[in-house]
Amino acid sequence: MAGKKRKKTLRTVHVNAGAGYDILIEPGILSYAGEHAARVCPKASKAAVVCDRNVFFPHAEPVEGDLWDAGLSCVQLLLEPGEEHKNIETYSEILAFLAEKRLTRDDVVVALGGGVTGDMAGFAAATYLRGIPYIQIPTTLLAMVDSSVGGKTAIDLPAGKNLAGAFCQPALVLCDPYVLKTLPERTFLDGCAEVLKYGALYSREFFDSLTDPESVKKDVARVIETCVTMKRDVVEQDEFDRGERKKLNLGHTAGHAIERCSAYRVTHGSAVAAGMAIMARAAAKKGYMPEEEARALEEKLKAFRLPADTEFTAAELAKAAMSDKKASQRTIDLIVPRRIGSCEIVRIDIADLQDWIETGLTW
Amino acid sequence: MAGKKRKKTLRTVHVNAGAGYDILIEPGILSYAGEHAARVCPKASKAAVVCDRNVFFPHAEPVEGDLWDAGLSCVQLLLEPGEEHKNIETYSEILAFLAEKRLTRDDVVVALGGGVTGDMAGFAAATYLRGIPYIQIPTTLLAMVDSSVGGKTAIDLPAGKNLAGAFCQPALVLCDPYVLKTLPERTFLDGCAEVLKYGALYSREFFDSLTDPESVKKDVARVIETCVTMKRDVVEQDEFDRGERKKLNLGHTAGHAIERCSAYRVTHGSAVAAGMAIMARAAAKKGYMPEEEARALEEKLKAFRLPADTEFTAAELAKAAMSDKKASQRTIDLIVPRRIGSCEIVRIDIADLQDWIETGLTW
Repeated sequence: MAGKKRKKTLRTVHVNAGAGYDILIEPGILSYAGEHAARVCPKASKAAVVCDRNVFFPHAEPVEGDLWDAGLSCVQLLLEPGEEHKNIETYSEILAFLAEKRLTRDDVVVALGGGVTGDMAGFAAATYLRGIPYIQIPTTLLAMVDSSVGGKTAIDLPAGKNLAGAFCQPALVLCDPYVLKTLPERTFLDGCAEVLKYGALYSREFFDSLTDPESVKKDVARVIETCVTMKRDVVEQDEFDRGERKKLNLGHTAGHAIERCSAYRVTHGSAVAAGMAIMARAAAKKGYMPEEEARALEEKLKAFRLPADTEFTAAELAKAAMSDKKASQRTIDLIVPRRIGSCEIVRIDIADLQDWIETGLTW
Repeated sequence: MAGKKRKKTLRTVHVNAGAGYDILIEPGILSYAGEHAARVCPKASKAAVVCDRNVFFPHAEPVEGDLWDAGLSCVQLLLEPGEEHKNIETYSEILAFLAEKRLTRDDVVVALGGGVTGDMAGFAAATYLRGIPYIQIPTTLLAMVDSSVGGKTAIDLPAGKNLAGAFCQPALVLCDPYVLKTLPERTFLDGCAEVLKYGALYSREFFDSLTDPESVKKDVARVIETCVTMKRDVVEQDEFDRGERKKLNLGHTAGHAIERCSAYRVTHGSAVAAGMAIMARAAAKKGYMPEEEARALEEKLKAFRLPADTEFTAAELAKAAMSDKKASQRTIDLIVPRRIGSCEIVRIDIADLQDWIETGLTW
């Protein structure tokens, strides 16, 4: 390891859920992945790197190199990118790979990629041999600030997104801001939608500090730290998504519906952005939120080149949303903004969902 | 519910694992399944009965009838029987069924069948929406005394048995001894193998009280209670199978190998019986156990018309065992009897497994 520059700017967020684990944020941390993996999984002799094919080049090499350096035998599975592959067939492929490579309960799975990779590799690790440790190395802003933290793993079913999965906390999360420089701009902006969500949910000050994509880029490690700290606080309160954690679904009921209606051509971040705008307008028109606050949210999304509306009708979206897991039979929990920085859970009759969406589609 | 005879002989074993749950043993309890389900899942409005096709007639009717009586909408999925269907395709089918029927996190899955049904329906419930409650209603002696208790759910992978799954405790287990009268004799004897295992592991007195299949039949509720109480004590100590719980695998390393080598034509109980005999002979010849104790175990298996040997070679069995999940890279934990009623965990080099099996194949 001689010659590697070390940890000038390491940020650590500890999460007290599952067995407890750290989220480490540091430019260049990919090259220390093995050292950290060996520390948190001292009994491991193998690391199975499950990696999005698009991410493989250039990020797999430093990660796998350091895993070997740390004494871990590295085996590698490349997955096809995209939400359409987040299904039981790919899950089955990962399980077969782990069995074929004879990973034991002491070994570790390393999920290297965006949210789709992390969700699927995490679910496979959570269920292979009834659970082996896994490490999240998210490579998108969206995965860094949201999906890699908190232990929600999942696959999609034909009936809807994330319908099968497990609550299973990772052993470690490594966020390398350098990686974000290699991403397409659109993917970065998608992540900004979830960043703005944290502001809308919990902090006016944070929301205001984010003026445009450049404002995120120039201070991205701090932005990630701020977001995961907020998420950590929520997950520690409500690991199993019974109460407060539901708020993280701001924009997601309509957002998931947009994704489904578009057959996942609309990406998650863009769909959540439009979903937040729909909820903000509906909240304003129904008297939950001052109109100027809702318009401020809309303007912010535009400043981030994120959509604030959708081509689908309220009927289409309501139908898609009702097959979502968050739809119980008679009621649905909507996350309704009261102002920027504060939202509440409002339980509505399922029959009223279409009206809420219709109200929020436009001013 | 007027007119039903009630609970003269209810036996209750409470398990302090997961959220805590009861195992209820009572002749005729199938007809009260709904009442009990409604009590432990008060928010449920639907019950998805996942049922082995062979078990459907005659056991589904009383269960589903009482679920309806208790105010639960009943939906039903019939599975093909047999270990060869305990795979990811059937798991996927159960998940799709739960989604199609729109079960929510408040609803309940009822696993009605033998160990295969319970393991798969339990795993589907453990992962659908990241976990919804499930109730085990085992219909074989083997499932009653072993697989339905303790929260190990699983499916097989092509590489081996139970390679994917979850630790997820049920909300309730209902054992109805009447059901055992409807089973083929061979299936009953298979369950006796696991009953004898508890005696061999933990109680000479219990072992001695079981003289032949009739001795189990005439007092079956007590036998079930004794076995699940022993298993409960182990599960409470070691829910996640890190130490003491491994002892429940007595006979299972060779047993699973026999099942695999026979392509599951040898049933689980018969394979475990032969596996216990192999371990007893090996333990005796290697000086762990007095020879007369090992011969007593062999004789007991014969009195129960269970196999005490196998047609496969030690090389075939060792190869099959090494792909099993309990095989870590260098070592394997064998459960070695010291005497009837006491066993120990012996960690051996994986290279020595074939010798152990070879030693135990015959006297």
